[in-house]
Amino acid sequence: MTQFGDIDKLAISTVRLLAVDAVCKANSGHPGAPLGMAPAAHVLWTQMNLSSKCVDWVNRDRFVLSNGHACALLYAMLHLSGYDYSIEDLKQFRQLNSKTPGHPEFELPGVELTTGPLGQGISSAVGLAIAQKNLAATYNKPGFELSNNFTYVFAGDGCLQEGVSSEACSVAGHLQLGNLIVIYDDNHITIDGGTNLSFTEDVLKRYEAYGWETLSIADGDSNLNEISQAILKAKQCKNKPTIIKMNTTIGFGSLSQGKETVHGSPLKPDDLKQLKKKFGFDPEKSFVVPQEVYDFYNEKITERGLEECTKWGKLFSEYKKKYPELGAELQRRIDGKLPANWESKLPVYTPSDPAIATRKLSEVVLNSIWDTLPELMGTSADLTPSNLTRAKGSVDFQPPSTKLGDWSGRYIRCGVREHGMGAIINGIAAYGANFKPYGGTFLNFVSYAAGAVRVAALSGYPVIWVATHDSIGLGEDGPTHQPIETATHFRALPNIQVWRPADGNETSAAYKVSLENKHTPSIIALTRQNLPQLEGSTIEKASKGGYILQDVAKPDIILIASGSEVSLCVDAAKLLKSKNINARIVSIPDFFTFDKQSVDYRISVLPDGVPIMSVEVWATLSWHKYAHECFGIDDFGRSGKATDIYKYFGFTEQGVVERAEKVHKFYQDKKVCLCSPFKKAL
Amino acid sequence: MTQFGDIDKLAISTVRLLAVDAVCKANSGHPGAPLGMAPAAHVLWTQMNLSSKCVDWVNRDRFVLSNGHACALLYAMLHLSGYDYSIEDLKQFRQLNSKTPGHPEFELPGVELTTGPLGQGISSAVGLAIAQKNLAATYNKPGFELSNNFTYVFAGDGCLQEGVSSEACSVAGHLQLGNLIVIYDDNHITIDGGTNLSFTEDVLKRYEAYGWETLSIADGDSNLNEISQAILKAKQCKNKPTIIKMNTTIGFGSLSQGKETVHGSPLKPDDLKQLKKKFGFDPEKSFVVPQEVYDFYNEKITERGLEECTKWGKLFSEYKKKYPELGAELQRRIDGKLPANWESKLPVYTPSDPAIATRKLSEVVLNSIWDTLPELMGTSADLTPSNLTRAKGSVDFQPPSTKLGDWSGRYIRCGVREHGMGAIINGIAAYGANFKPYGGTFLNFVSYAAGAVRVAALSGYPVIWVATHDSIGLGEDGPTHQPIETATHFRALPNIQVWRPADGNETSAAYKVSLENKHTPSIIALTRQNLPQLEGSTIEKASKGGYILQDVAKPDIILIASGSEVSLCVDAAKLLKSKNINARIVSIPDFFTFDKQSVDYRISVLPDGVPIMSVEVWATLSWHKYAHECFGIDDFGRSGKATDIYKYFGFTEQGVVERAEKVHKFYQDKKVCLCSPFKKAL
Repeated sequence: MTQFGDIDKLAISTVRLLAVDAVCKANSGHPGAPLGMAPAAHVLWTQMNLSSKCVDWVNRDRFVLSNGHACALLYAMLHLSGYDYSIEDLKQFRQLNSKTPGHPEFELPGVELTTGPLGQGISSAVGLAIAQKNLAATYNKPGFELSNNFTYVFAGDGCLQEGVSSEACSVAGHLQLGNLIVIYDDNHITIDGGTNLSFTEDVLKRYEAYGWETLSIADGDSNLNEISQAILKAKQCKNKPTIIKMNTTIGFGSLSQGKETVHGSPLKPDDLKQLKKKFGFDPEKSFVVPQEVYDFYNEKITERGLEECTKWGKLFSEYKKKYPELGAELQRRIDGKLPANWESKLPVYTPSDPAIATRKLSEVVLNSIWDTLPELMGTSADLTPSNLTRAKGSVDFQPPSTKLGDWSGRYIRCGVREHGMGAIINGIAAYGANFKPYGGTFLNFVSYAAGAVRVAALSGYPVIWVATHDSIGLGEDGPTHQPIETATHFRALPNIQVWRPADGNETSAAYKVSLENKHTPSIIALTRQNLPQLEGSTIEKASKGGYILQDVAKPDIILIASGSEVSLCVDAAKLLKSKNINARIVSIPDFFTFDKQSVDYRISVLPDGVPIMSVEVWATLSWHKYAHECFGIDDFGRSGKATDIYKYFGFTEQGVVERAEKVHKFYQDKKVCLCSPFKKAL
Repeated sequence: MTQFGDIDKLAISTVRLLAVDAVCKANSGHPGAPLGMAPAAHVLWTQMNLSSKCVDWVNRDRFVLSNGHACALLYAMLHLSGYDYSIEDLKQFRQLNSKTPGHPEFELPGVELTTGPLGQGISSAVGLAIAQKNLAATYNKPGFELSNNFTYVFAGDGCLQEGVSSEACSVAGHLQLGNLIVIYDDNHITIDGGTNLSFTEDVLKRYEAYGWETLSIADGDSNLNEISQAILKAKQCKNKPTIIKMNTTIGFGSLSQGKETVHGSPLKPDDLKQLKKKFGFDPEKSFVVPQEVYDFYNEKITERGLEECTKWGKLFSEYKKKYPELGAELQRRIDGKLPANWESKLPVYTPSDPAIATRKLSEVVLNSIWDTLPELMGTSADLTPSNLTRAKGSVDFQPPSTKLGDWSGRYIRCGVREHGMGAIINGIAAYGANFKPYGGTFLNFVSYAAGAVRVAALSGYPVIWVATHDSIGLGEDGPTHQPIETATHFRALPNIQVWRPADGNETSAAYKVSLENKHTPSIIALTRQNLPQLEGSTIEKASKGGYILQDVAKPDIILIASGSEVSLCVDAAKLLKSKNINARIVSIPDFFTFDKQSVDYRISVLPDGVPIMSVEVWATLSWHKYAHECFGIDDFGRSGKATDIYKYFGFTEQGVVERAEKVHKFYQDKKVCLCSPFKKAL
């Protein structure tokens, strides 16, 4: 049983005051949760295995601050534990270009996940836990327990109300993730007031229903032993994740403690002063850290963690001698590298190959690279036979006791939980060890996970969405299921690829570029219906995100399209040729990647002097960027046979031809006015 | 205790076969759940109060098929109950332009909510139940129980896994909605296989934790008495919603019964034949309805419901005599009309009024119209003091026993549950009685509710999102909270307004148009920071969605902007004038509304021959539709003081001026080439 003494109290007061000083200096931020959770942070961090001297150690314990607005607490802990945050950085809390932004971001030292948007942290932590279990099952050997870290989460009422966490925590319970421990800051306060206003459910009972172990801490404000015991008990529960409901006083010590006002407003000067006095600090000084507190954390966290990390390093060296192949593979993954020449496994097609739905071509890719890339982990939101996301011969990731799979399995059954799945794959990617997770659903329902997708883009998590049934082409399921605005949405989101391959080579290119992109998530939109292999497509060309598929000597018009409409344009071009209108066909499988090419290249694809018409069975809004005229669908879809719907909206060879003729005629006397879309003033 | 006999068995078989015949004829659709749930549908519908002869009766019981893919069942019941669906309509299931699309849509007769996207139905049903409670509390008088209908939901495993339903059901438990009854089709099957793969939580325990009553039906396949008793028991529970876990066999009677394959694939011909034989029908005939079944449903549902509806009509007539004001108000609401001249309450501003944040201006609007529009119901996802969504003097909608409000209250505390809130306000709007719900959150987190927002647009639910903290202008909370792509997303979604008012008159216009739009939802994006009242803005002009704010004789350039950037452009224009560049300022507060204006009007706003530059601190993607050059932010935001961030991204007077000068110079010799964006070939 740990002995806690004066030094612990002093450390906790130091943490509390550093946090509120940062908030007060910024005159912005959230002092309530830091004041309430500082004791738990202190107890937890002094027993976690991590170190500022071993930031990338793959077996470090992971700490996630799901209530990310409490980050003044996190930055204080990181500073005191020797991470690369100076006192000046704390003073720059919430200031432009500082290292201490208003919510924690993934790229910062010691921050395991971007949090702030509620529910994301705890849900992605489920992914961190899954990754650890899988890594352990894949590489651990007798006498070489390389992977055994825990994942700890701080979460508040907000995170637990969010549906995404309900989804992910149900998954965690099913998967029996005993390596996941959540400390729930039960302070009975939310922004609107008391939790009695809207959040009166029995939280622990709900978590029992999910299959979690549930514990309680009655006095999270001051009873360090109680906190410590709960964490130890949680760690001992091997086959259930644990949630510890910890009673705290929000804004502990403040004159406004226990009230909703202390959640998100800096303490007033008088309040701050009385707080410092209360804790035995000089009320006139700020950002004060007694040397003994630095020494204490250095010993308890930094050096202890470094010792563990060094021991681990020796163990891993021995492991590499005894298991050279596995050891090299793990080292490669730790270094964040894909296997040499992996892309040679990607299937290549010629126009004589049969027409195949791109969702099926995606499955072929996954089957082709599955064994080469042990870092691939797949999942689907209960649409496996529709998404075709499960590689042949793969094992399901399941607790062995279920007999449905085991921890080394790389295919997760996520259930009908798109947002939870999105957060989970974010966590798997964030874990490290080069994990490359992908999640499947219908393209339209990627929107259910928009919160998680955005965090992936902001954080640079290299996740892949395998998004099938991409348009009216899905047919009878109808407008509730047919994407219209989805690609426009994600094309406008920074740092995310939105691939819509038109054939097999483009599908291979989509996976190639997506997997090579270490810091950019990807959505790959795939058809339900068969598409022909295109003349002129290659993996190399498609990897530019946009390219000339078929050219003519002097184009009278340029047809640009993505996915299923590329072949439609190819067919239309033949008809147009018979009418003496020569069309260049351009395929733009991914705006993001295309926009990264040189301006000269892009101008060569879409030059001056030729009218450009886009053709895509989605909203037209994103195409004005590249095209003078847009043929799209700015209405909801329809329920019916796919071919009937295509006809209904005019997307036939004849429909494209008619519109191309109109466009050609309209611009005939204006061609000199037509500039490449890439020749701009700004 | 109800006696069930042969006629009931015959009716159930008829329903089952009509459903599978529709699926087989379409060669598409989901036969499993219809076969499994037909008995429950039969028992429930024969005791619900509704009638095809009283389709808009405000006190009808509401039935929601949350597992919307089972709609072959719904259409069969609707046909048999005399709704406007012929046998031919059933034969046209899932065919283009039929009345029987692949998932049920709100505008169809007898369909209470659009479903298909899982989780939406059950969650919006919570809104239907809230609306009923509120209507009852508002209008019922002793001896005049005008409102007392129940809301019944069929839901499957999929809906219960979705986070949105977790959120909404937690709210329903807190609100003690005893008028809500969910029948959960516990068939242990999902698309991937058995629920043992991913959905092993204790569902009833979870619902107990939410505060629901939980019941079970062991034999939903055949024990009609058991089903009936459970429904009766559920109705008796006055202060808790009820979930009834009903054991069924998916695909009951099919050779594939109990397997995941029967979920979403038509029965094979042999299977269909054996099924018909099993049920005592001719295996060679399809779409067979014995006359006695028509007669039975006509008596048990249509005529019985009509009787209740007629009684209600008489009661309401008496009520109108005794309570003329309330009666007239309720009649007005039933007729779907707003009060005459309500818009005269909207505040009007002049440039001498102070600068105010538009979130505050929104609050002023709500306060101004709150009493005039008793149909307004507000809520916030735990951001009430930030969204400023609670009208002065309003009462919270809470169970009276909590002492926090009562059922007549019109402000709901939704908790941190954006998606659940979105579905709930959809349900409130769908209820009828002219309910006009609005939900508040930060604009960035409207994305969490994208699923529900899309259904609102598809269905035409007149909901309003009060979406504050709309940009980098929110400052220190940083990139996790600052919208970039959000407006582009929703601008590309059909049938939804995306207002971003620039001042007080524009805010009033946003509410005016949003509330007048009966079939189009609306997002109103509002600032945290103060904005000046603009010279040239009026409610009337802004109501066009886009207009010339300030003009010049011969514009050298047109600056178009929305919201906070309009005043920035106004200031920049003054500087530009001193450099002899005359700028017209155009404000586009809502693309959707602007696009509905005549093409001549729009050309008058954005004519030929003038370079058009957009200015908006969001993604540029949507502006290429209107502008030649776009000044925006195609990156994530930053954490810092709002003014520092604006400066960082160049959004200062000087920054706008520099870019405007560049644009002006670039197009000086190309003006003759510049066409109005509304002069297109297509």
